[in-house]
Amino acid sequence: MVTPMNTAAARDRLVDAAQDLFAAQGVGATSPRAVLAASGVGQGSLYHHFPTKHDLAVAAVGATVDDALARAFRTLDSGSPALERVIAYLERPRDALAGCRIGRHTADQAVMDDDGLRDVLTAYFVRLLAALTTIFRETGLPDDVARDRAHAALAIIQGGYVLARATQDPDALTAAVRGFVGLLDRHQ
Amino acid sequence: MVTPMNTAAARDRLVDAAQDLFAAQGVGATSPRAVLAASGVGQGSLYHHFPTKHDLAVAAVGATVDDALARAFRTLDSGSPALERVIAYLERPRDALAGCRIGRHTADQAVMDDDGLRDVLTAYFVRLLAALTTIFRETGLPDDVARDRAHAALAIIQGGYVLARATQDPDALTAAVRGFVGLLDRHQ
Repeated sequence: MVTPMNTAAARDRLVDAAQDLFAAQGVGATSPRAVLAASGVGQGSLYHHFPTKHDLAVAAVGATVDDALARAFRTLDSGSPALERVIAYLERPRDALAGCRIGRHTADQAVMDDDGLRDVLTAYFVRLLAALTTIFRETGLPDDVARDRAHAALAIIQGGYVLARATQDPDALTAAVRGFVGLLDRHQ
Repeated sequence: MVTPMNTAAARDRLVDAAQDLFAAQGVGATSPRAVLAASGVGQGSLYHHFPTKHDLAVAAVGATVDDALARAFRTLDSGSPALERVIAYLERPRDALAGCRIGRHTADQAVMDDDGLRDVLTAYFVRLLAALTTIFRETGLPDDVARDRAHAALAIIQGGYVLARATQDPDALTAAVRGFVGLLDRHQ
């Protein structure tokens, strides 16, 4: 017997379960039925809150993006000097072998073919790029150089995850970060 | 009617079709039946050459890795000075919006859960990392710094692909490369 629960709690459990499954195995490879089973809520709740898989995916990936942005901005908007904030963001501990819960979706054709879902990914990276560009400008760089360097910084994280997964070596991500930070540090 | 063809030609067509479909939509999301249809060979050929999807995937991803390594080493082993070889490799034109035909598989749980297939990915990145580490050592860097910088260089490419896909902006990859090369250049 599934314990009765109020509708908001059921929605939260569905979103939580979807976030974990999508992060672990991708959106395309995850059925709403699997999310339902992992959430422990009743089938009626699923169809009530999320009539289609698209609706569930937008809610779950959107929640993951919101969480990730909140965490990123705690570091990027701290009161430290500009370059220290970037380096603190780059050096933050990450579960390298799990891959990026957001970036991995760029390889999932089910996500890329869904305009509304892809927009959620786009918004995440556009916001981080804008924030990093602003910070690099604060270090005195011209706009175009700051923008390029922001792309490089974010690519280091995303690419570091790919290398760590591919080589099954969590240090591959930290090595990429060290390599990049070493170049940044000596520059300022 | 499928035109009769010799067995080696049928195998090649199966591998070619699998390489394209796996690169476009991932291994997990591609059925052997779809590869068969795209290849235009008879069903008997598929099961003769590749009794399981694992066999087909190892052959196809292995062929993609061999092609990519051959192309990379034409640049990395050229007679140019060390740093120029790395920069030429980083700046090579790439189809950013298509994503990396190899790196994308790190987000495909069907690949990551298959030891033999994952070993093919690992071998690709380990070889490139070793080559880049050697080249950075040739520029006079100590071993550990050269190794970190090799990870950063490869992460820039892989992460640049992720950013380009996520933002649907092919310039995101070239911006990441410019940002990294700008740091490298002023260093030597």
